[in-house]
Amino acid sequence: MADFTLNILGCGSATPSPLRNPSAQVVDYRGRLMMIDCGEGAQATMRRMGLPFHRISHIFISHMHGDHCFGLPGLLSTLNLQDKGGKVVVVLPEGGVEIMKSITDYFCRENSFEIEFQPVSGNGGLVLDLPSMTVEAFPLYHRVPAYGYLFREKPKQLHLRGDMMEFYNVPVAQRQNIKNGADFVKDNGDIVPNAWLTRPADPSLSYAYCSDTVYDRRVAEAVKGVDLLYHEATYDSSFAEKALARGHSTAAQAGKIAAQAGAKELIIGHFSKRYTSTDLLVEEAAKEFPNVIAASDGMTVDII
Amino acid sequence: MADFTLNILGCGSATPSPLRNPSAQVVDYRGRLMMIDCGEGAQATMRRMGLPFHRISHIFISHMHGDHCFGLPGLLSTLNLQDKGGKVVVVLPEGGVEIMKSITDYFCRENSFEIEFQPVSGNGGLVLDLPSMTVEAFPLYHRVPAYGYLFREKPKQLHLRGDMMEFYNVPVAQRQNIKNGADFVKDNGDIVPNAWLTRPADPSLSYAYCSDTVYDRRVAEAVKGVDLLYHEATYDSSFAEKALARGHSTAAQAGKIAAQAGAKELIIGHFSKRYTSTDLLVEEAAKEFPNVIAASDGMTVDII
Repeated sequence: MADFTLNILGCGSATPSPLRNPSAQVVDYRGRLMMIDCGEGAQATMRRMGLPFHRISHIFISHMHGDHCFGLPGLLSTLNLQDKGGKVVVVLPEGGVEIMKSITDYFCRENSFEIEFQPVSGNGGLVLDLPSMTVEAFPLYHRVPAYGYLFREKPKQLHLRGDMMEFYNVPVAQRQNIKNGADFVKDNGDIVPNAWLTRPADPSLSYAYCSDTVYDRRVAEAVKGVDLLYHEATYDSSFAEKALARGHSTAAQAGKIAAQAGAKELIIGHFSKRYTSTDLLVEEAAKEFPNVIAASDGMTVDII
Repeated sequence: MADFTLNILGCGSATPSPLRNPSAQVVDYRGRLMMIDCGEGAQATMRRMGLPFHRISHIFISHMHGDHCFGLPGLLSTLNLQDKGGKVVVVLPEGGVEIMKSITDYFCRENSFEIEFQPVSGNGGLVLDLPSMTVEAFPLYHRVPAYGYLFREKPKQLHLRGDMMEFYNVPVAQRQNIKNGADFVKDNGDIVPNAWLTRPADPSLSYAYCSDTVYDRRVAEAVKGVDLLYHEATYDSSFAEKALARGHSTAAQAGKIAAQAGAKELIIGHFSKRYTSTDLLVEEAAKEFPNVIAASDGMTVDII
């Protein structure tokens, strides 16, 4: 099982569709669950996908439209019924804190765990700093204040070469420093360069969520070099004007952002109800960025 | 197709279950849809059941627990996206008006239809008066203020006997009065009694929704003589103490209420997640009231 997995609970847009739930995802990072958006029905899909509710530590809300947050009160109520204990941090645009707090104050009066609301404003910035991962919020360009979220593993440790540890008889006490890049200084003062003693660290992986937004190059800048990019692709190119007017992107525009960002892989989602098949959307995005797939509800993607 | 149909969208209790949605029902009365409770996911189930959203005129909320109302913001947003126009009346305990109004004010700012909140308080009373039906709210006995709703057809018109209309040569202008019970007065002043001219009216049917509530005889009084009674039966008898402590009923208690009320038929629902099969619950209720069935999500029952 991969350390870093994306679970897609819902990849539909605001108008309900029998095929797709509204927006919701769960990033599973070494067993810690971090949710992104929480449309109505997200908890039911989580349950169907076997994602354990009590492992949720953070919920990142992109913007305060109902199709991205109407599942939140129900999910928090269920956590309460499960006697979760501890704390859940809800990261959301600052304009949404008051209403969400009113809702949880009203409906979760006898709460078994703490709900902390952490507002995002301006240009976003670092919203979570874990020992081996950070999450940053960055602006999206929609009809209301909206933020994307970038999950990025911190640089990993170098791998020690067992043969060299033995050859130079490196004391255990020094090995941690060497993993972090230090040279080995022998008792006689001789220096063994780190490069002789180690193999490169595993790459640090990253995932970015961009929904809802119009096509904007600043989004590509914000997610430069990302491994996996989820970008909304509400419409095909024939609806480009409508996309712009509604604060959304076409599939081709999602492809352009992935190309500009130098992403490794693109997943498109937030599909308009009109698309029963997403083939056309994938085709249009692939012209701009070939390594693209369409999201679907219940899909799990390892970030590797 | 019957004039008066109950559609069960969700018959689960607060702890989510993979088998059942939280509480929600739709009464279809001659094409007008009236919703009772609106748990999360109600709109998705409505769609699956082919119930047209734009026909919803009223939504009756029993009480302000999340499993009975968290689907409301999403449903109202969808009605808005569909450019419904007109008005939806949300009938709810008065303590819920402020929070629900805050939510719709925040999320439905550019609304295409009017949302009217109609508070229920004290002992309830008449909450809707249609030309051929009334809806009354009556108190339930739960942990927070809660109301049941009684849908009752008004007395119907008598049926004219075609043979008698012809025999007495009754003018068309007088026939409506005769349907309403008048005798026929001939030009010469002779009176033909109504009973010679008509056959009895069809019975006026009724449906009552009772969830959530402890076992209380006052509920039976409130729904005296009802044709179809939906009563919660969260637990079997072995959990009678827990039922009382949590403000709920056992299946046997639901059966007792149906018997005391002289109901014609009982549907039990609001089942605890622990019951994958409802056989035990039906069995226990049937000892008190034999004409009982278990609700299930997606079930449609004609009230006849």
